[in-house]
Parts: sequence; C-alpha cells; structure tokens
Amino acid sequence: MNKEEHLIFGIHPVIEAIISGKEIDKLYIQQDIKGSGITELRKAIKQHNVPFSHVPIFKLNKHVKGNHQGVIAFISPIPFCDIEQLVPTFFENGKTPLILILDRITDVRNLGAIARTAHCVGVDAIVIPKRESAQINADAMKTSAGALNYIPVCKVDNLTDTVLFLQASGLQVVACTEKTNDTIYNVDFTGPSAIIMGNEETGIANQLLKAADAKAKIPMVNEIASLNVSVAAAVIMYEALKQRI
Amino acid sequence: MNKEEHLIFGIHPVIEAIISGKEIDKLYIQQDIKGSGITELRKAIKQHNVPFSHVPIFKLNKHVKGNHQGVIAFISPIPFCDIEQLVPTFFENGKTPLILILDRITDVRNLGAIARTAHCVGVDAIVIPKRESAQINADAMKTSAGALNYIPVCKVDNLTDTVLFLQASGLQVVACTEKTNDTIYNVDFTGPSAIIMGNEETGIANQLLKAADAKAKIPMVNEIASLNVSVAAAVIMYEALKQRI
Repeated sequence: MNKEEHLIFGIHPVIEAIISGKEIDKLYIQQDIKGSGITELRKAIKQHNVPFSHVPIFKLNKHVKGNHQGVIAFISPIPFCDIEQLVPTFFENGKTPLILILDRITDVRNLGAIARTAHCVGVDAIVIPKRESAQINADAMKTSAGALNYIPVCKVDNLTDTVLFLQASGLQVVACTEKTNDTIYNVDFTGPSAIIMGNEETGIANQLLKAADAKAKIPMVNEIASLNVSVAAAVIMYEALKQRI
Repeated sequence: MNKEEHLIFGIHPVIEAIISGKEIDKLYIQQDIKGSGITELRKAIKQHNVPFSHVPIFKLNKHVKGNHQGVIAFISPIPFCDIEQLVPTFFENGKTPLILILDRITDVRNLGAIARTAHCVGVDAIVIPKRESAQINADAMKTSAGALNYIPVCKVDNLTDTVLFLQASGLQVVACTEKTNDTIYNVDFTGPSAIIMGNEETGIANQLLKAADAKAKIPMVNEIASLNVSVAAAVIMYEALKQRI
C-alpha cells in the first residue's frame, strides 16, 4: 500500500470525497486560509462530521508538493463500522462478544500491533475515538500484518457514550489500568466483555475509568518498570481467551 | 545514547579494543583486505573469539566517512554475563530462576521489546547467541525502556550447549512453538524454567526444539494469523508469572 494512494488534495476534490462518503481519516486545512471554496468545504465538514485540524503551510507542503490549495485529506485504507449496528449482530450470531476500546492510542505501530494480536485472539471489534487516535495508515496496516483488514474497526465521537451503550447491551467493560489492586486474573471474562486500553503516556481518561464496570491491573515483579501498551493489551486479551477456552 | 559512541574503527584501535576486553558486539572487516595489521587483527579475533563478518567497502563507508582502514567494531552498550556463572548464584540466592533464550531474534526492536517485558515479569537472565542475533544497539536499548541495563544478558557460542547446561542445572527448558498440541497452559512453570523464543521467520532451530524438555504453543482463534515474537514472548512469560504468584 502506497501512502500517496490515500491522499486527496485541492479544495474541490476533497469536498467531493467528503460528500461521496469516503472515509476521511484526517483533514488538514491551512491556517488562516479563506475564500468561497473554503466556506463550502467547512459546510461539508460540518454536515459529515469530519475530523480536521488547522496546520501551518509547511505541514501541507511536506505531503504534497504540487498545488494543494491549502487542503489535504487522508483517506482511510479500511472502511469503518458502526458499533451500535455491530453489537446486536454478535448476539444474533450466538457470539459472546469481546470488544477492544483503544482510548487515544497515538502510535500507529502500537495500533497495528494491538490489532494483530486482537485478530489472533478473535476480538470481535476495535473501537477508537474520532480524535486523538493514531491514523490507520500504511504503517499501521503493515504492523497489523493484515489484521486491520479483518477486524471491524469503529470510530466514535465519544468513548464514554460507547461504554454506556456497551453496558446497556449487556457487556461488562473492564479498564486495564494500574490504578487498582485487582489483577486481570480476578476478572471474569467469560461473559460479553469489552476491554479498555489507554493512551501511551497518560493511560485511560478519568471519565472512562469511572464509567467502567471493573478495573484490572497486570501484575509486575519490578514495579518501576512498565509494559508497552501493545504488550499489555496482549496479556489481558490472552487472559480473556484463556478463560474462554 | 549516541550511535557513534559505540563505534571503533581503524586496525589498531580495534585490536586494542579486543585485547583490552571490550564487549565487541559486531566486527566488520572489508572483503579481500590484506596486510600485516590485518593478520595481527585476525590473531586477536581468534584468541578472543570475536564474531566478525566480511563486508563490501560501501557498508563500512556507511558507518564511518573517515579512514576506517577496512575495520569497524561496534561496542556493546552493556556488559555481557556468563550464564554458567549466573545460574548457580540464582539458586544460592534462593531464587526459582526464569530464563529467556532468544534463538536468533534479528529485529533490534523485538529484542528491546522482549527485554522490556522480561524486566516487568522478573526474568533473571536473557541468553542470545553470538551470531545471527540482533545487535544490542541504541535502538534496542531505547525500545527496552532501559530494561537492558537491568537484566543480565548472556551471549553464548551455542544455544544447544546452553540448553544442556541449564537442564543439567535443574531447569526445565520449554520451547514456545506452534509445532505441538500442548498449549502454554499445560506447562508447569512453577519450577526453575527456561523459555525459548525463535527467529521471526523460521522459529526455533530444530536442534533446539529437540533438546527442549517441552514444547508449548500459544492458542490462536484465527489460525492463519500470527503473533509478533515480542507479543508471543509476553504471553508465555505472563503465563509463567501467573503460575508463580
């Protein structure tokens, strides 16, 4: 997969991509840019709830050397799914769903590595927030060893709303965090479950921690050491799998 | 840590580094190079059993732009330990040793990531072969999040000899491989144990597989998928830790 394949630039091509329903992963708009085309673009962004950032022109020039007209869109290499449509189908198909919620994982390789393991473990869906999450780009796809082509990925506006939805659907939501005395071995994963993994630096947001049904930590012999998030995700996912087989 | 800090080049500086007992991680000698200095160098290499490779000159030029005289040595940022001296001390200190044997892990980031998890789990030593193993360089140190400064690393000429030594010392040696029906959950890790992880592409060498006391696979829901070796190592190490706590 080539990175350029997933770039669209120029005001009108980007507006068309948005209106035609393409999966816009990220949208860069040049700071302080104005004009009737930009006004039209902002309307399309608002209507389709597309995440965007204002960036200095050099950041745009890094990606496109030709005339980007101040606008670049990154198209996702995978389609995104709707978690609210997916969950009922899991139950209809007799599954005991296992869902992974990634709260602002920002490193594309961590995201890819987690997806790779999730596929091995049979995770049914991965949920990521629309903002502050690593882009699903060529590097993420590569690190996932193709897994991102198989596992449904859902992008949501608000993870707390998703947690509430999952709980209302009968799932237990477990936050993987060191801020507890319970270990992952004290949690029963045999029922419908979702696991939250948190940001590489700051962990899981407080609001999500509060919303979760249970907190579980991974035991450490050397307490000052820390696990990489993709490793921590693997350890808790495999505990869930072990309990289920 | 700067990469250049760990480079020594020129015939006589490298000979001095070898003779003075510096930890030479890798030694590049220019193909077809001759001369009295090189003869002296080869003598030192033989006496101190230093691993080396013959490489084309462009590979040397990539690392050193000045006059390398056809010789570059990479010094390890960590000292290496002697596994035969270490193991008795574990028993003397009342430990139930857990040792990790890495059979030709070639990616420095995998090596670093495995060390990071090993430190969290309290692994007592990591054994790597002198040849065909990733260099413990600045990238490996960084990925290990400092763990390579804490866990003893042993470099050995022959991993099969190490397995035989560990078995003679009372350790059970477990090969983590998909070539078995037993899972990691069927193995008892509560006694003194060593775990072998294999090369990213080819897995564990046949000779080592044969020498091991047990083989154990990590279960997979999607059989065609595969785990990254640093994730697989984490899953089996955590199973050992779980049984021990």
